[in-house]
Amino acid sequence: MPIVEKRAKPESIERIREIVGTDSVRTSKADLYVYGFDAGMHRSMPDAVVRPQNAEQISQIVKLANEHDFAIIPRGAGTALCGHNTPVAGGIILDLQKMNRIKEINPGDLLCVVEPGVICDDLNNALKKYRFFIPGPASSEAATLGGMVAANASGAKALKYGATRDYVLGLQVVTPTGEIIRCGTRTLKNSSGYQLEKLFVGMEGTLGIITEITLKMAPLPEKTAACAAAFKELVEAGQTVADIIAVPIFPAQLEIMSDICVKAVNKATGLGLPECGGFLLIACDGHPEAVKDEIRKVKEICEKNGAFFIDYTEDAKRIEELWKGRKQMLASLSVIKPEFSTVMLADDMAVPISKVPDAVKGFLEIQDKYDIYIPPYGHAGDGNLHTKVLLNPENKEHWLQAEKAVREIYDLVLQLGGTVTGEHGVAISKAEYFKKERADSIPFMRAIKRALDPKNILNPYKIFDWDESFLSNLRYPVEFSKKEA
Amino acid sequence: MPIVEKRAKPESIERIREIVGTDSVRTSKADLYVYGFDAGMHRSMPDAVVRPQNAEQISQIVKLANEHDFAIIPRGAGTALCGHNTPVAGGIILDLQKMNRIKEINPGDLLCVVEPGVICDDLNNALKKYRFFIPGPASSEAATLGGMVAANASGAKALKYGATRDYVLGLQVVTPTGEIIRCGTRTLKNSSGYQLEKLFVGMEGTLGIITEITLKMAPLPEKTAACAAAFKELVEAGQTVADIIAVPIFPAQLEIMSDICVKAVNKATGLGLPECGGFLLIACDGHPEAVKDEIRKVKEICEKNGAFFIDYTEDAKRIEELWKGRKQMLASLSVIKPEFSTVMLADDMAVPISKVPDAVKGFLEIQDKYDIYIPPYGHAGDGNLHTKVLLNPENKEHWLQAEKAVREIYDLVLQLGGTVTGEHGVAISKAEYFKKERADSIPFMRAIKRALDPKNILNPYKIFDWDESFLSNLRYPVEFSKKEA
Repeated sequence: MPIVEKRAKPESIERIREIVGTDSVRTSKADLYVYGFDAGMHRSMPDAVVRPQNAEQISQIVKLANEHDFAIIPRGAGTALCGHNTPVAGGIILDLQKMNRIKEINPGDLLCVVEPGVICDDLNNALKKYRFFIPGPASSEAATLGGMVAANASGAKALKYGATRDYVLGLQVVTPTGEIIRCGTRTLKNSSGYQLEKLFVGMEGTLGIITEITLKMAPLPEKTAACAAAFKELVEAGQTVADIIAVPIFPAQLEIMSDICVKAVNKATGLGLPECGGFLLIACDGHPEAVKDEIRKVKEICEKNGAFFIDYTEDAKRIEELWKGRKQMLASLSVIKPEFSTVMLADDMAVPISKVPDAVKGFLEIQDKYDIYIPPYGHAGDGNLHTKVLLNPENKEHWLQAEKAVREIYDLVLQLGGTVTGEHGVAISKAEYFKKERADSIPFMRAIKRALDPKNILNPYKIFDWDESFLSNLRYPVEFSKKEA
Repeated sequence: MPIVEKRAKPESIERIREIVGTDSVRTSKADLYVYGFDAGMHRSMPDAVVRPQNAEQISQIVKLANEHDFAIIPRGAGTALCGHNTPVAGGIILDLQKMNRIKEINPGDLLCVVEPGVICDDLNNALKKYRFFIPGPASSEAATLGGMVAANASGAKALKYGATRDYVLGLQVVTPTGEIIRCGTRTLKNSSGYQLEKLFVGMEGTLGIITEITLKMAPLPEKTAACAAAFKELVEAGQTVADIIAVPIFPAQLEIMSDICVKAVNKATGLGLPECGGFLLIACDGHPEAVKDEIRKVKEICEKNGAFFIDYTEDAKRIEELWKGRKQMLASLSVIKPEFSTVMLADDMAVPISKVPDAVKGFLEIQDKYDIYIPPYGHAGDGNLHTKVLLNPENKEHWLQAEKAVREIYDLVLQLGGTVTGEHGVAISKAEYFKKERADSIPFMRAIKRALDPKNILNPYKIFDWDESFLSNLRYPVEFSKKEA
């Protein structure tokens, strides 16, 4: 779909100032610049940054957008990695961070109610004293609940605890035409018509603006034990993952890291993990006796698959230290070679669990063909593998290699019965590969979008609405295009 | 929406015979009669009963229906309780029971793949040897997986194990315009565009015909222990439920029964449960040590709330016996008074868990105002309460009382923050109350239906598409209307 600009004109911005107050609308160059991208690599300037305080204000802004034909891009903390928050057709960024109240924590009903701008870790800190939690993504220090719902985000705990979609009981949403509706319930289940609260999960801001979230809470486990294991070969680690699941044991976390990732973490954090081809970090949680049994079985499986180093611990501090290393891995990768940068390509593929060994083997074979690094890591327990591309951003050859390699990786993932995105979403950077994965259902998705957002106001030209020319314009970062020009 | 008939004419039925074979199309009076209703009380004759064998045949039939303008009502085993399978505008019943192959059981990927006509218990028997299961509804002996998905069915285990929606990873669906599409993945999570596989859960056959289901499997627990407890007052039992959840303990099953239900079960099964105002059946499962701890705590909470009888058992045979009593309860109710029948009204409301005591108290107060019985029972652990109305179907006064009482019950449930249907769906019998619950989101649901099914072919005039005159025509069973005439 060729892009039709949907700019907000000065008179629209003036009207928005009247709705939210002058202080809540920013149009300085600095503001527009920093809100032109998320944690991914696509950039395009909005016409204004707006910080609404409630659903009524948002409803008025959406109605105005329908009248004046400008785009609205909802945004939480901007931790998205695929251009979700990039205003490709102009329009306004709706920054929801002012709507950050925890409205209710209700242990008796096993639920809590939050505004979309609440940060995941802040919510979990508040839930701790009630002995509950919500599993979050690796970016939980910054990511907001609204963004997590919009992307169906998940993280290391999804195998045992599920993704965000499994926690959404109810939503308040401003529709693309400005109505305020409630979906879902305050009950743990319902069969009350279309499960709209589930349709809104993963819609990447294209079907509505989430203004309130009712979440089921998971009970905090009584005990956690962790096991770290190093293998000579990455495929041995991959096989161990498949063997643990086949017991079945569902660890709370089951992370895999390839050699480069281990090196990067050691270099950045001084954790001193053993040099190896593949490293596993496994945590089991729950009833103390169950945890003891499970971690023992995990250890045996690691040994059987040739682990040359096993570190078993029930010490909460050591467990935290190990996971801190994993959490810092993405940042750590950039220290591997001074001239290399980490690029958000091929970032969160998922494969059926038993295909994890085939996938990591395949990724390494693809990497070997090129001068760039594509180190596999990720939440292997649920088949969700990550890679990042490490390249010299000033080297055009590297970018061309990256494009080829990423295409090969996605082709392999689809061939193994997987998906191009397990937890980050499609937005811009995965749109091309998404088209391959979902060719038959895209018309159905598009029909829903057009019926609900007839003027294409909400986060337009994302997921399924794009064309080749549009993508190639947006694929590479501005810096590179400038150098070329 | 006034009903427009969508009858299948003889030439359409002839074309369908060519598609599926003569043996797979029934038009005898007997066939049309028995396929005119489900386990609920609404009746209307179809023009033919068709038994397709694969998605391609269904696609052809749906395309024909769009061309010839007749309705299609998909049907599994017909265990629905609210008129889901009643062809109110005529058309054909698409009986999916011939599509009953278990296509794959894949323990390594934690999933299985089935056709829609597979019966829940048959699947669980097949999964047993791999030590997995899928939680099913009370009607699991007959209910099909396709019907379970279409209604987001669930049963006694939903508190701990979730509803059907939590198990659907992927679907193959024939759309309302006849395309065959795949939604979802073979991975445990995805962020790959709109989560259509979740939208199709609970759509009651109005948005597509499910032709294949990929289901996540739950691991069979190592051990189960059960605790039965009798209380003088039903509200004491209700309070016990709230107290158990508040620990938090998530029992695998937590069933509540009022006095009439206990009497009915005893009369029908000879189980010999103690006469009481309220009875709880609680099961905990998982790791043996965790189970032991949990059931001990459950017992203490029962004692604290005044239980005068507690039966604790780890004996699998006794546990099965207790649950058999509960499973037979619905059938048992009809033996309470010889002239009384069980009527499927107000059948599966859900309230926030902490409101269970208020709800059961309120239901009993409403019952006391009338000559009919409305005994509460249900899956109290997840707030999903059931009642049935017991009345003399030849007594018009009883029917009028039932109508009033049911309206009061639904009003109470909505006032307590609940939903009119926790696990059965809306269809016809709950449409009026559903409208109250979902007033703001019905236009959004309708917009989706119209965009995807522009000719209103699939299971028309259900959930949100109805009007008062239509409802009152269909509310009471044919037998009663005849007597009145």
